[in-house]
Amino acid sequence: VPKAVSDHRALLDDPAIDAIVICSSTDTHARFVEDAAAAGKHIFCEKPIDQDLATIDRALGAVREAGVKLQVGFNRRFDTNFARVRQAVASGEIGEPHLLHIISRDPAPPPLAYIKVSGGIFLDMTIHDFDMAQFLIGDEVDEIHTAAGVMVDPAIGEAGDLDTALITLRFANGVLGVIDNSRRAVYGYDQRAEVLGSKGAVSTANNFPNSAVISGPDAVRRDLPLNFFIERYTESFIAEMNAFIDAVASGGPVPVTGEDARVPVVMAIAARKSHDEHRPVRLCEVA
Amino acid sequence: VPKAVSDHRALLDDPAIDAIVICSSTDTHARFVEDAAAAGKHIFCEKPIDQDLATIDRALGAVREAGVKLQVGFNRRFDTNFARVRQAVASGEIGEPHLLHIISRDPAPPPLAYIKVSGGIFLDMTIHDFDMAQFLIGDEVDEIHTAAGVMVDPAIGEAGDLDTALITLRFANGVLGVIDNSRRAVYGYDQRAEVLGSKGAVSTANNFPNSAVISGPDAVRRDLPLNFFIERYTESFIAEMNAFIDAVASGGPVPVTGEDARVPVVMAIAARKSHDEHRPVRLCEVA
Amino acid sequence: VPKAVSDHRALLDDPAIDAIVICSSTDTHARFVEDAAAAGKHIFCEKPIDQDLATIDRALGAVREAGVKLQVGFNRRFDTNFARVRQAVASGEIGEPHLLHIISRDPAPPPLAYIKVSGGIFLDMTIHDFDMAQFLIGDEVDEIHTAAGVMVDPAIGEAGDLDTALITLRFANGVLGVIDNSRRAVYGYDQRAEVLGSKGAVSTANNFPNSAVISGPDAVRRDLPLNFFIERYTESFIAEMNAFIDAVASGGPVPVTGEDARVPVVMAIAARKSHDEHRPVRLCEVA
Amino acid sequence: VPKAVSDHRALLDDPAIDAIVICSSTDTHARFVEDAAAAGKHIFCEKPIDQDLATIDRALGAVREAGVKLQVGFNRRFDTNFARVRQAVASGEIGEPHLLHIISRDPAPPPLAYIKVSGGIFLDMTIHDFDMAQFLIGDEVDEIHTAAGVMVDPAIGEAGDLDTALITLRFANGVLGVIDNSRRAVYGYDQRAEVLGSKGAVSTANNFPNSAVISGPDAVRRDLPLNFFIERYTESFIAEMNAFIDAVASGGPVPVTGEDARVPVVMAIAARKSHDEHRPVRLCEVA
Repeated sequence: VPKAVSDHRALLDDPAIDAIVICSSTDTHARFVEDAAAAGKHIFCEKPIDQDLATIDRALGAVREAGVKLQVGFNRRFDTNFARVRQAVASGEIGEPHLLHIISRDPAPPPLAYIKVSGGIFLDMTIHDFDMAQFLIGDEVDEIHTAAGVMVDPAIGEAGDLDTALITLRFANGVLGVIDNSRRAVYGYDQRAEVLGSKGAVSTANNFPNSAVISGPDAVRRDLPLNFFIERYTESFIAEMNAFIDAVASGGPVPVTGEDARVPVVMAIAARKSHDEHRPVRLCEVA
Repeated sequence: VPKAVSDHRALLDDPAIDAIVICSSTDTHARFVEDAAAAGKHIFCEKPIDQDLATIDRALGAVREAGVKLQVGFNRRFDTNFARVRQAVASGEIGEPHLLHIISRDPAPPPLAYIKVSGGIFLDMTIHDFDMAQFLIGDEVDEIHTAAGVMVDPAIGEAGDLDTALITLRFANGVLGVIDNSRRAVYGYDQRAEVLGSKGAVSTANNFPNSAVISGPDAVRRDLPLNFFIERYTESFIAEMNAFIDAVASGGPVPVTGEDARVPVVMAIAARKSHDEHRPVRLCEVA
Repeated sequence: VPKAVSDHRALLDDPAIDAIVICSSTDTHARFVEDAAAAGKHIFCEKPIDQDLATIDRALGAVREAGVKLQVGFNRRFDTNFARVRQAVASGEIGEPHLLHIISRDPAPPPLAYIKVSGGIFLDMTIHDFDMAQFLIGDEVDEIHTAAGVMVDPAIGEAGDLDTALITLRFANGVLGVIDNSRRAVYGYDQRAEVLGSKGAVSTANNFPNSAVISGPDAVRRDLPLNFFIERYTESFIAEMNAFIDAVASGGPVPVTGEDARVPVVMAIAARKSHDEHRPVRLCEVA
Repeated sequence: VPKAVSDHRALLDDPAIDAIVICSSTDTHARFVEDAAAAGKHIFCEKPIDQDLATIDRALGAVREAGVKLQVGFNRRFDTNFARVRQAVASGEIGEPHLLHIISRDPAPPPLAYIKVSGGIFLDMTIHDFDMAQFLIGDEVDEIHTAAGVMVDPAIGEAGDLDTALITLRFANGVLGVIDNSRRAVYGYDQRAEVLGSKGAVSTANNFPNSAVISGPDAVRRDLPLNFFIERYTESFIAEMNAFIDAVASGGPVPVTGEDARVPVVMAIAARKSHDEHRPVRLCEVA
């Protein structure tokens, strides 16, 4: 049912509408979630619900009270590469997990104006990797240590943010992980994961626009990987939306709940605190 | 405009319809092309137009006379891997082409009943590779030599067909090529190409459902390549149809004409003749 | 025992010497083999024994009569990549073999002066691939079809030779194979093999000086493969000599006999005849 | 000059000997270095010189006083993969380095008896990676944070050691690095490095016994990587010894000095201290 309205309440009042999708700017998410919940609509909301835990908790309370479904847009869980890593861990194919690596680098930093309102690299960029870490290992992170700096653009540092980081995670089950973030990989979007387990390891590579290899007089080369999230994650965006529609239609659970989506925000806050205080920080200190 | 009719003439009589898509069984293609041309409709027709050259020529004559567009479904030209090989040749990136390899293996043979009406492996399966060969090199094949046998299933031989072949091509410009066909690659659909040129080489690999590599105690392994044409060529089917729609909408030329599509049929006939007569056969002998 | 003499007979007369290694120019091989056999020495001789079958047969007769061991230098059988392909075929790992590909390209053509006395591309270059083909499949070739041309350098054609070829092989057991030869691959020495069997396929890649992959703003690239046979086959040269020494020391059979080494010469003659007469040629026509 | 003696002093007294190679057990290294220096011999000593900084410093003092050359056996610098990474950094090929990853996993833990005298994972195993980190980046590490645990074998923990670790490094120039260590990768020796720089990235893969890929009905697979250091680093052991011989013969500097070799010991001590005190530790705290 295609419908355009100037006020979102018009949508919420329409009894023909079962569910709504929120992909507005982050500062409006929580309010829209609350309004939609009050109207009894199921909700798909882009991540994060908010940068503030109290605001998130109020929105999640409204969702619980209304008994509607809320799915948050951590689309990467639906990517075939990351899903295959999760399968290798969950099925026991590689035994008990020991070590996790997530490489997550953007091709170029966003505009400074955006960086200033983004909540910082951990809330804006690493948040996906925090979700991925827990998804891949299937356990909660207990402690975070951040080593970070400004290497890409001094203006990012002047804006109070960081652009390069190695974030060490200690999971409750003892697994150790590291997230590698950079705001600029000149060769394009770099999105990989690797898990070492007691019975083997699984690792993924980047996705490329084609498989052609050119052997010339100077080098053997191939075209750059897919440049950014629109190209790289196209199929996962479709898959996550299909999963939401299935959950609404079938009455089953959504694959990424509001509670799932709250944790990466806690992790982002802990990561920044670790950087500021120059020490490992436990999630229970900030949650 | 979705519309279902029991007789295709009802579609042809509908003035609201500009173009039709023919993907019925091969023996109906030529007749439908002629009817559609007579009705002034633009036509997208699955390959081949027919197994018989005279029938093809009558259909192409009808298309020419009616002044409508005809695009034939050689979808692989729209695959990003093969398109990249073509680009490397056409742009001069690898210099003048010298040698061409096409590997084209099905995961399993079709049912015997189908094989008996398929026109044989060269008209049914290799026809795509014949088109690809000319597309990649950008020149016409002059001579064909076939070395073939029955290795996959004796019943295919009893039905008068072959299931395994190496077909050598000599192009008018001197380039040499080989097509490798098998009706059964147990690891899945194998679709690769390689060109050696004076300034370099280009080669493509198969497409996989994910990039995950699993290192276990016995081997380093990955999941099998995409199993068959539906999965492997999904995007190319969409791209070829978009190209047809663009051509109809813009009035521009179609990317694969009826004349383009006639040549692979000639090549298939020559390939079988080479096998039967145990000698190289020039296309001018059968065209 | 290091020893330098001006006349090879001085070596042959030395009773302290058990075996000799012949790596002089090809036209001297057969004579040295005969002399060494007459002196009762075991012999390692670089390939080929001669370009002429009658001369080879006379040398082989002398070896048989003297009861000495003769190993011929088809070193590539000792390369770990090709040995792994052979193992996959011989062990049944890929089932019954159906199709074979050998890619064998030099980085650059030899000097014209050498080409003029080389016996032609099939005796000089393809001879290694002819041996490899039989080694990998473990069966004899019955028929050869050559499609060849001059694409690298017209002067090679003027010297009566060819520089680019696709040679189709039909084995006695029905297997079909193709050898791809070029005198110039600008990216370096290209030495690969692939076998499709009823239960799988095996393929090898080129060897590189390191495994480093560089991702830059324009491409993902790696250094060129090892440039030529000295670097590429170092370990195989050592391994074949060790195998010869073992055979002499243990009294066991040599891994590549004079009879093994005769066949590729027959194949080279058939390949040229196929080119000259523009038809498939059976080995029994020339053997 | 092959020579076997029961007392090393007999070697040191021999005026025909210019240089000696120490590859005895670690607890004898420092004493032998001092004796050899006193005898005026050039010295190649396996790493580490000792586990104790004061003992190392006394040995280095003896070397300086005697004016002899001392090269320490950090052989991995001579490996072609790691050397290529260093070249990419040193030449500016990837711009200014930002992030470093070293993956270094053994195929299986050593015997417990060895672990008990090894000095712990950081002095025994990570010491190579500490050296590699400084070699690749070309700068000194300023601070270390260790996240480690016992996941492979509880007996290792009972012996007071660790078997799995992620060690974060902050270099003086701001570069951030992480070393991934495990005492057991069931697929074999895992030795990789990766550097992200401002103009690109470089990464290496493991070395394999052959390049063969087997495509079967269940997976596409290859043989396991080279299993352990003898196979994996054969060429680097030869290259480092040649470099030492060259330095002695030419009178030039050795490529890995005693001072170079002291730093990884400091790093190992800091890494353990970080684990014990659960905080980042600066090298200046322990040096």
